[in-house]
Amino acid sequence: MTSSPTTSSGLDPAIAALLKRDAAGLVPAVVQDETSRAVLMVGWMDDEALHRTLTTGRSTFFSRSRNEYWVKGETSGHRQWVRGVRLDCDGDTLLLTVRQEGAACHTGDATCFDARPLPAVVLPLGPGATVPTGS
Amino acid sequence: MTSSPTTSSGLDPAIAALLKRDAAGLVPAVVQDETSRAVLMVGWMDDEALHRTLTTGRSTFFSRSRNEYWVKGETSGHRQWVRGVRLDCDGDTLLLTVRQEGAACHTGDATCFDARPLPAVVLPLGPGATVPTGS
Repeated sequence: MTSSPTTSSGLDPAIAALLKRDAAGLVPAVVQDETSRAVLMVGWMDDEALHRTLTTGRSTFFSRSRNEYWVKGETSGHRQWVRGVRLDCDGDTLLLTVRQEGAACHTGDATCFDARPLPAVVLPLGPGATVPTGS
Repeated sequence: MTSSPTTSSGLDPAIAALLKRDAAGLVPAVVQDETSRAVLMVGWMDDEALHRTLTTGRSTFFSRSRNEYWVKGETSGHRQWVRGVRLDCDGDTLLLTVRQEGAACHTGDATCFDARPLPAVVLPLGPGATVPTGS
């Protein structure tokens, strides 16, 4: 189905009221693997994509380049089974926890962030930076 | 320093050529804790913010609401020490791995995604979904 992003969706109005969308009506959705905890990819959602994600148990995004909704894995078989969805403090970003089937990236890589590390300065860790896990 | 996003930055032209920015010249930057693997927050970067992040070892973002650059923890002390930076397959999203000092969220929560879980349908996992860790 091809459609522009819309706010006239089936999304619970109480949730819709929390969302802060960009000029195109979208928010980024970070997808994290429940098992490996790897960040797999980032997709974009309008209200309807979020509604479908919350109600079907499958990650559904809005493609900015193709201007259509897409269900992750519908073509590739590399489906994402939703395990949890969270909205951030500002209401402008979503975090999906999923169980991923196969490679998350269309290139065949496990994640969309595997291929291009950038050269970054890494400072020696100070004493204040040695925070315990989960703190 | 207050400034609009710019592409005339000190960023390595070879990296700048890989970036696909939104209409405001920005890309989302997902920040993940190196230790806990938690997704801490999502910030926004233009070329200059990425340049500063790559060259200083500290996460630097561009605030869409305040229209200025900000170094994470400069005010709160809850600094992020960069451990790695990766660009995704499409060139439109960054993933930072960091060592986080204190709470990542300005609300005092460990992450910006702690406070607002959304009600999502979670399907029983099928046999195809029981993928091994890291696959």
